[in-house]
Amino acid sequence: MFKINENYLKLPGSYLFSTIAKKVAAYSEAHSDKSIIRLGIGDVTQPLAPAIIDSLHGAVDEMAKAETFRGYAPDLGYEFLRTAIAKNDYADKGCEIGADEIFISDGAKCDSGNIQEIFSVDNKIAVCDPVYPVYVDTNVMAGRTGTYDAKTETWSDVIYMPCTAENGFVPELPKETPDIIYLCFPNNPTGTTIARDQLQVWVDYANKVGAVIIFDAAYEAYISEENVPHSIYECEGARTCAIELRSFSKNAGFTGTRLGFTVIPKDLKCGDVTLHSLWARRHGTKYNGAPYIIQRAGEAVYSEEGKAQLREQIAYYMKNAHTIQQGLREAGYTVFGGVNAPYIWLKTPGQMTSWEFFDYLLEKANVVGTPGSGFGPSGEGYFRLTAFGSYENTLAALERIKKI
Amino acid sequence: MFKINENYLKLPGSYLFSTIAKKVAAYSEAHSDKSIIRLGIGDVTQPLAPAIIDSLHGAVDEMAKAETFRGYAPDLGYEFLRTAIAKNDYADKGCEIGADEIFISDGAKCDSGNIQEIFSVDNKIAVCDPVYPVYVDTNVMAGRTGTYDAKTETWSDVIYMPCTAENGFVPELPKETPDIIYLCFPNNPTGTTIARDQLQVWVDYANKVGAVIIFDAAYEAYISEENVPHSIYECEGARTCAIELRSFSKNAGFTGTRLGFTVIPKDLKCGDVTLHSLWARRHGTKYNGAPYIIQRAGEAVYSEEGKAQLREQIAYYMKNAHTIQQGLREAGYTVFGGVNAPYIWLKTPGQMTSWEFFDYLLEKANVVGTPGSGFGPSGEGYFRLTAFGSYENTLAALERIKKI
Repeated sequence: MFKINENYLKLPGSYLFSTIAKKVAAYSEAHSDKSIIRLGIGDVTQPLAPAIIDSLHGAVDEMAKAETFRGYAPDLGYEFLRTAIAKNDYADKGCEIGADEIFISDGAKCDSGNIQEIFSVDNKIAVCDPVYPVYVDTNVMAGRTGTYDAKTETWSDVIYMPCTAENGFVPELPKETPDIIYLCFPNNPTGTTIARDQLQVWVDYANKVGAVIIFDAAYEAYISEENVPHSIYECEGARTCAIELRSFSKNAGFTGTRLGFTVIPKDLKCGDVTLHSLWARRHGTKYNGAPYIIQRAGEAVYSEEGKAQLREQIAYYMKNAHTIQQGLREAGYTVFGGVNAPYIWLKTPGQMTSWEFFDYLLEKANVVGTPGSGFGPSGEGYFRLTAFGSYENTLAALERIKKI
Repeated sequence: MFKINENYLKLPGSYLFSTIAKKVAAYSEAHSDKSIIRLGIGDVTQPLAPAIIDSLHGAVDEMAKAETFRGYAPDLGYEFLRTAIAKNDYADKGCEIGADEIFISDGAKCDSGNIQEIFSVDNKIAVCDPVYPVYVDTNVMAGRTGTYDAKTETWSDVIYMPCTAENGFVPELPKETPDIIYLCFPNNPTGTTIARDQLQVWVDYANKVGAVIIFDAAYEAYISEENVPHSIYECEGARTCAIELRSFSKNAGFTGTRLGFTVIPKDLKCGDVTLHSLWARRHGTKYNGAPYIIQRAGEAVYSEEGKAQLREQIAYYMKNAHTIQQGLREAGYTVFGGVNAPYIWLKTPGQMTSWEFFDYLLEKANVVGTPGSGFGPSGEGYFRLTAFGSYENTLAALERIKKI
């Protein structure tokens, strides 16, 4: 008789955003007269930039003719896209990353969930707390996290690194030595970030203890301050300890278009084995490439036209972020983030828990946000709003919040 | 110090098609005057059908406007596509499969590689021999296959079910009871298939011993004979023992467009736990949906226009299959497959091994095929040609083969 992967049964409840969707749907059904504004999930709302649309149409036309039709893509992704990335995201910023160290994928969520597969089940992971749930959940599914304590909402074999107002949302080096360290800066959910010299401390630490850093840089396009690193490869020594995950979702509005990439420098080794070779094997065996037309859309992100249009798009969202920040402050909230990231992280007022504030905001202002505790125990007492709505909705939401 | 997933190191050599690509590249470089015809990898060559192209352009235009822009897709895939599949592929063919039992993905390769994750590592798999390499390789990476014997080219913990000319390429029920059975019909690589009553024997067996059948039906569109099942759900009792994988790659030319789906009936359980719920969790946690525009392209496959155009496309490839069959027979080869599948499986002449025949064909006729032994030990002495080339190339390849 076949048996299931019992690790799945250890996962508490359902995925955070599914729970929120269900709560909102229930409220909406009971109050069909209310118009709800969603500033919860980190999903973009602005249409794809014209340069990307043109590129998509062009690629679709190529697929219509035998002479230009494309079948299976090269394993690592198309050269034209990997070259554009290597130049624009790395060489132009002084980082030494080759086009053949870049693996094109269908997004950073998949990559951040799949990357743990190339490591031993015995490895111990360290995560920031609060944290994007996918890092932990996928390690649970792989059997790497021990047992769950429902009271503390923590796993016995996971090292948690609290990120709170007290430490400026930058984790301290853990007391127990981890094998794999997940870092996400600019951070989801807190919207805060790390300075280059602070990240250098982590790179040095990882090299010293022999840990790998999985650096999620999905929000780098929102960085506005000079001393904040866009890539971990801006730090010396990162080529021997860091994997970087990047996404087109937030810098180019690809949440529904699906494109991302992972960088694994060939200097990153365990004994004689490069992690690059393992990921290449996984990529070639369990994945079959992003669609040709989507890879062409990704290329357009790096055209001069595309870059200019996307700068505008990001400015649009960051104007929302500013609106939320200002509005919340005026309403008396304590607010973090929103300067180098599209997320605003606020302290819940009074003694409200994160979920209490979720219900309060939904009921009183008909605004949906994300409870901080959904991202980990240290997120309790915090709440996330995103800048990805329309400007009109963002303004309206803040007007409502100010009134409650 | 971090450790790698040691199972990866057990994988012998590189992925079959990478090896072939390297050999062809080396030959090509040494003989730049020769024009090589590729009938090796199962990659399509005909452009996307006009109905699909129209649908892609339409969906791209939707992404250009805020009112019709789409962000994250629903976890299981868009309703419009799942409904079209449930109706056309199942209800219309008398199979009881609900739209909510269908999971949209970016292709059957990913699904066939990922599906093993929801099962216990202790489970024992059974595979046909020869077999599509992804089934075994992904189980190796998960640590489910024991040790490799280079001499027999088999894994100690895998049950192999030989499919050869002697048993008409239909496996016999295994002596040792498996937990998970991979079946692919119409078959890749042999191009042969299974009759409905023969498949019913497998469904009855799986229900009796408590095994799950993972049924890969990627080639069902090529079926021309009445008694050959398009879906395992044509068999009674399949809802309690079978998962079905489907692809848009071969029926609609999506190898570079990437779309597929997996069916898990809610009646398929281990104790109280449905496999549907486990796959839903995996899908929601480690995957983020196929692009909206690609899902719209998939919908067009089921339009009246799309269906008519794709029937023509399949007829085009099957004419190639007939050309290969006839040509090889005229040249004195023993040939199988090609009636319900786009693959032709031939016995290598004389005492040639599969790789010897690969070299022979490449050197003497400048034609690339796939060595049968690359699919497993029982593939030794066989060779695969595909019908996915252009008609002109297929004709030319056969002319060359007849002359050697």
